[in-house]
Amino acid sequence: MREKSYLLLVHHPTVDREGKIITSAITTLDMHDFARLAKTYGLGGVLVQTNLPQQVELIKRLLGHWTEGYGGERNAHRKEAIEGVTFWPTVSESLGAVQKAHGERPIVIATSARDVGLPVITFAEARKKCEESGGPSVIVFGTASGLAQEVFSECDYVVEPIGSPSGYNHLSVRSAASIVVDRIFG
Amino acid sequence: MREKSYLLLVHHPTVDREGKIITSAITTLDMHDFARLAKTYGLGGVLVQTNLPQQVELIKRLLGHWTEGYGGERNAHRKEAIEGVTFWPTVSESLGAVQKAHGERPIVIATSARDVGLPVITFAEARKKCEESGGPSVIVFGTASGLAQEVFSECDYVVEPIGSPSGYNHLSVRSAASIVVDRIFG
Repeated sequence: MREKSYLLLVHHPTVDREGKIITSAITTLDMHDFARLAKTYGLGGVLVQTNLPQQVELIKRLLGHWTEGYGGERNAHRKEAIEGVTFWPTVSESLGAVQKAHGERPIVIATSARDVGLPVITFAEARKKCEESGGPSVIVFGTASGLAQEVFSECDYVVEPIGSPSGYNHLSVRSAASIVVDRIFG
Repeated sequence: MREKSYLLLVHHPTVDREGKIITSAITTLDMHDFARLAKTYGLGGVLVQTNLPQQVELIKRLLGHWTEGYGGERNAHRKEAIEGVTFWPTVSESLGAVQKAHGERPIVIATSARDVGLPVITFAEARKKCEESGGPSVIVFGTASGLAQEVFSECDYVVEPIGSPSGYNHLSVRSAASIVVDRIFG
């Protein structure tokens, strides 16, 4: 049921390095990397959340190069991936959109490098939940220094940390999402 | 022996979508993502290759923000990762530098989504070769649409493709490297 699984990239509320709640800036590069990742693993698509409508307008104009403009003609693969990206003002609304599309509340699995007070499941368990439930699912990623605590109240589980043999645990959200998706859906 | 394993990011010779040999542009974002990835998995470092010395100068100035400037003071983790990045004008010289550092020719493993005429090894075999040999190793990644054929003559093996349940196989080099490193060293 991987085609009912979505990646949600949250820009607000996230936290900075001091734990302060912020809105991080959308980057086109994250959109491209997430879109290509979701497409490669056969997922349903990418949900991008931000509370700043101006950023959505800007990013849509930039992505339009790939979906409607010259970039899409030159690179049909990229167009195909980018078309799977949608934008939402809140985490609730992005989850609501998945529920509406599939007529069923999605299983919502957060990612975090720290203890967030949710049941922790392994990657194998996450795979089982996403693939065997028959229903939709959403894997939630935070930009900046991660998801703010209030986001976890909308999630059912948190998947185990990626782990680091070196003790250094500061992957980019692009790297972390790639590894998480590969471990769950690879 | 993961601390003797390096990631090599090649910008020339690479190929564009038509297979023409090009020099792709260095991006600071690739440096950051690769550096953080190598550090997280306890690898020896990141070798960045380009034949354009002006690009190396530019990128060193930009990365200097993190190693010598304000960014490094604010974010010691990033400084630590970025300090593991070195620059080389050719693939041969980057491999020579690893050989010189460890007194032994490295095992060189290419990555490619297509058949390149090298022995194909699985991720488990690559892990074995990198971790059990006791000597140095280098995993080679191409930017743009991948490594030019002549690069493979300097490699010993190519690791099996990441694969795609959907048939769509167009990951970013940042995503591909993250997944390859996790499968070999995770």
